[in-house]
Amino acid sequence: MQTIILNISGMTCGGCGNSVTRVLQALDGVENVTVDWQAGRAEVALQEGTSTVADLIAAVEDAGFEARAN
Amino acid sequence: MQTIILNISGMTCGGCGNSVTRVLQALDGVENVTVDWQAGRAEVALQEGTSTVADLIAAVEDAGFEARAN
Repeated sequence: MQTIILNISGMTCGGCGNSVTRVLQALDGVENVTVDWQAGRAEVALQEGTSTVADLIAAVEDAGFEARAN
Repeated sequence: MQTIILNISGMTCGGCGNSVTRVLQALDGVENVTVDWQAGRAEVALQEGTSTVADLIAAVEDAGFEARAN
């Protein structure tokens, strides 16, 4: 298991945070997601050999937010 | 071209509206999307024979919102 921290911009309420949480949870190998929309931060527990950090970033960006690995 | 109206609950700011817009725009056959987050409403111009209304609803729900066809 690895922990990935993403910095995410564009989350402006708890609904945005919920949306980011959901799109990350849908990815292969994601075991746990914690999003702090006010801090612009997501912490993702990810099984190794499954989704990549680029996959996580792409999913968040497809949902309309900007993301980068911390 | 057909126009689909979805009623969507859970959008609580413009960032949520942007997220819903993005996930709908990503679907096959979607030509135009207009989301009014305050009204809880999305209008989708959809090419026939491509995505279904159920596909639209599933995409919105995967992003963490509740949707139903109007």
